[in-house]
Amino acid sequence: MREYSGLLTDLYELTMAAGYFQTGFDGRATFELFIRHLPPHRNYLIAAGLEEAINFLERVDFSQDEIEYLRSHPIFAKIGADFFAYLGKFRFTGDVWAMPEGTIAFPGEPIMRITAPIIEAQILETYLLATLSYSTMIASKAARLYTAARGRQVVDFSARRAHGGAASLLCARASVVGGCTGTSNTLAGEMYGIGTYGTQAHSWVMAHEDEADAFNHFLDTFPAGATLLVDTYDVRKAVKTIISIGRKPAGIRLDSGDLRADSRWARRELDRAGWKDVKIFASGDLDEYKIASLLKKGAAIDAFGVGAALGTPGDAPHLNLIYKLVEVERGGKIREAAKFSRSKVTYPGRKQVFRHSNSRGEFSGDKIALEDEPPGGGEPLLVQVMRDGRRVAPKEPLTALRERCISSLARLPKQYPQLNRSAIYPVRYSQRLKVMLADVRRRVQHPAVK
Amino acid sequence: MREYSGLLTDLYELTMAAGYFQTGFDGRATFELFIRHLPPHRNYLIAAGLEEAINFLERVDFSQDEIEYLRSHPIFAKIGADFFAYLGKFRFTGDVWAMPEGTIAFPGEPIMRITAPIIEAQILETYLLATLSYSTMIASKAARLYTAARGRQVVDFSARRAHGGAASLLCARASVVGGCTGTSNTLAGEMYGIGTYGTQAHSWVMAHEDEADAFNHFLDTFPAGATLLVDTYDVRKAVKTIISIGRKPAGIRLDSGDLRADSRWARRELDRAGWKDVKIFASGDLDEYKIASLLKKGAAIDAFGVGAALGTPGDAPHLNLIYKLVEVERGGKIREAAKFSRSKVTYPGRKQVFRHSNSRGEFSGDKIALEDEPPGGGEPLLVQVMRDGRRVAPKEPLTALRERCISSLARLPKQYPQLNRSAIYPVRYSQRLKVMLADVRRRVQHPAVK
Repeated sequence: MREYSGLLTDLYELTMAAGYFQTGFDGRATFELFIRHLPPHRNYLIAAGLEEAINFLERVDFSQDEIEYLRSHPIFAKIGADFFAYLGKFRFTGDVWAMPEGTIAFPGEPIMRITAPIIEAQILETYLLATLSYSTMIASKAARLYTAARGRQVVDFSARRAHGGAASLLCARASVVGGCTGTSNTLAGEMYGIGTYGTQAHSWVMAHEDEADAFNHFLDTFPAGATLLVDTYDVRKAVKTIISIGRKPAGIRLDSGDLRADSRWARRELDRAGWKDVKIFASGDLDEYKIASLLKKGAAIDAFGVGAALGTPGDAPHLNLIYKLVEVERGGKIREAAKFSRSKVTYPGRKQVFRHSNSRGEFSGDKIALEDEPPGGGEPLLVQVMRDGRRVAPKEPLTALRERCISSLARLPKQYPQLNRSAIYPVRYSQRLKVMLADVRRRVQHPAVK
Repeated sequence: MREYSGLLTDLYELTMAAGYFQTGFDGRATFELFIRHLPPHRNYLIAAGLEEAINFLERVDFSQDEIEYLRSHPIFAKIGADFFAYLGKFRFTGDVWAMPEGTIAFPGEPIMRITAPIIEAQILETYLLATLSYSTMIASKAARLYTAARGRQVVDFSARRAHGGAASLLCARASVVGGCTGTSNTLAGEMYGIGTYGTQAHSWVMAHEDEADAFNHFLDTFPAGATLLVDTYDVRKAVKTIISIGRKPAGIRLDSGDLRADSRWARRELDRAGWKDVKIFASGDLDEYKIASLLKKGAAIDAFGVGAALGTPGDAPHLNLIYKLVEVERGGKIREAAKFSRSKVTYPGRKQVFRHSNSRGEFSGDKIALEDEPPGGGEPLLVQVMRDGRRVAPKEPLTALRERCISSLARLPKQYPQLNRSAIYPVRYSQRLKVMLADVRRRVQHPAVK
């Protein structure tokens, strides 16, 4: 696939683009990306995916083949050559404000705001929604795992459960934004400089005539770094075999069975052998609830590998991020836009989010306001990352994003970073936004009753 | 990212590869990919993802940069230059047998079997699991949507909820394998020749001063193909507006609200206007259960767009496909392999699946047997697709894969293609496999008690 293809979008974005083009609608529009409601059990989100989005916005275009494809599509049969010539020169020329990755976000708060000629902003909707939704979902899940593990390492093991290779890379990166220490995904290690982990699987043990041979041969190859997998046949026999071999591994890994009982038993056996520094690693269908429960019950586990629950979370398999028009310019006139379908209201206007703290440095509440409102002591969360289609914010190292997430979680009052829906963080709209919403509602409802 | 990178794998596959290399373990191994249990509510799977897997196997290699990355990784500090030279020449040289895409599959049945030098087969595990799991999960979900829609079109609308752009393409393709008619994903349309659908979003309506203008301008651009979205403010007002404009659209789309009541009301209004051929399209958090319920209650809907429930299914967010060693050669001797950890048994040996039919042509049961067992009247499901690293099965058109799925579903007795867990399709193991399993169990347990 062409990684930065303008065709990476829903067809309706392109038909609308043609419609704006044909009818001379060339004003600038502002769209905001946010969620209306938190997924079940969540108290907050961790914004992520911005770097990927900026990369795309800097490079997106249409190849001649892609334009020919559109030209041959029946829906575009009546569209003249000018529109296709426009696509041939298409580049993103807009402005982007966004929450830096690792920032805590709540419902209603834009994690990104984009202002551009309406055709550009429309065409980019699908890509931006997918990219920011996925990474934000993963970083938010990783933060829960980080909380549950209480200082122990959590490693992304999800590559084999990912939605293909490219998704596995985005997942590894977003996992680190949310607090994971590393990944099993080797290409993610190379591309993003993330620490990579893993040594042996069941197949290594099964490929050898007996388990002692399997362990010995692995220790021959990796005398210092081997973590030996002990549950292929019988955990306790395997641990005894390793101790009887007498060559100290770096660690052992439990991947099934009673992780609490087996880890405690293995810890005692390893300690008795004088191997107090041999780490116990656990994996096998783990999630934040199981990790919290294992640690609460005294499991002797030093680090966790989490696969499917991190990469394809069953409790929140997607994030309902939306991309809403909040302002549009036409014929030199700016007009605020909002949506009022049953039970779904969208506030108009270009917004900023101000986060307030109390005297102890804890976050005490957010105010969503218009971008030109005074901060009133709050910290503005959206920063400008692109101007006229060019990146203006420097690329941040992944370690800085992870640090932002972890230090922000530490400033969140302790009722929020919990595994269950525990409390609703206070987020309010400014008075000016409320007035503007009422004005738009009157204006939109008026023509409908004429 | 490099699309066919050998680093697209878990680090432990590469440490095991180094272990096999250093200890002179160069025999051929056979691994099989299958699921142990069906996800909740499922009675069958639809195999998919094979084309993507073959593409990868034909092209995978390691770049010099990638090899340098591995060489600099602490875990490989003691590994000599020969192993890295081996990776520099790495190509897949093995044999692959697989179920053609669109084939119905059940637990225990290999959807792929790979025989190759053990290092190759090990390195490729992670990629093959991810690719076949994801596409099989999506095709299986699409088949449920196809069943629920009872002949009406179902279109993949999941691009904005996909795990990034690349995942959205795999999803669009697998959706069609499982019975969908098309996708909203434009790049998928271009790459795979899938029909693409979609015309306008809420933002088009919101960008215009009033709804009548929005509809008129869209009809100006697309006089023949416009499907107008009617729920931005008020469905019934919008439908009346369209009728009063007097320009017949191709269709209308409902994206929220009471789809049953609104579709029936809209159908009557459109019919009364003499517009019996204007189609009613529905979308908005649909899944197979909602589609079945809408149709059962008489909703007047001609086609459905399905997003998140198709691309990121909440009821089965991943497939637990596994990759198990079933046979290994060392020093010229072939040895069968199996796994016996608590409650998880894997049958040894290279397998074939034979599907039996009754006199009415209905599928009556499957037998999993060794590859050289006689079919006994059953149809062998695994076909050879690669030999010595080269493709030997021709690439099939996507329409043929969809047709295979649909005609197979029609041959499945009607208790199986249901939306809930209804009946367990009979799958049994051959007598020779059972004997071989018992032999391996004795052999593996013997050394453990010595």
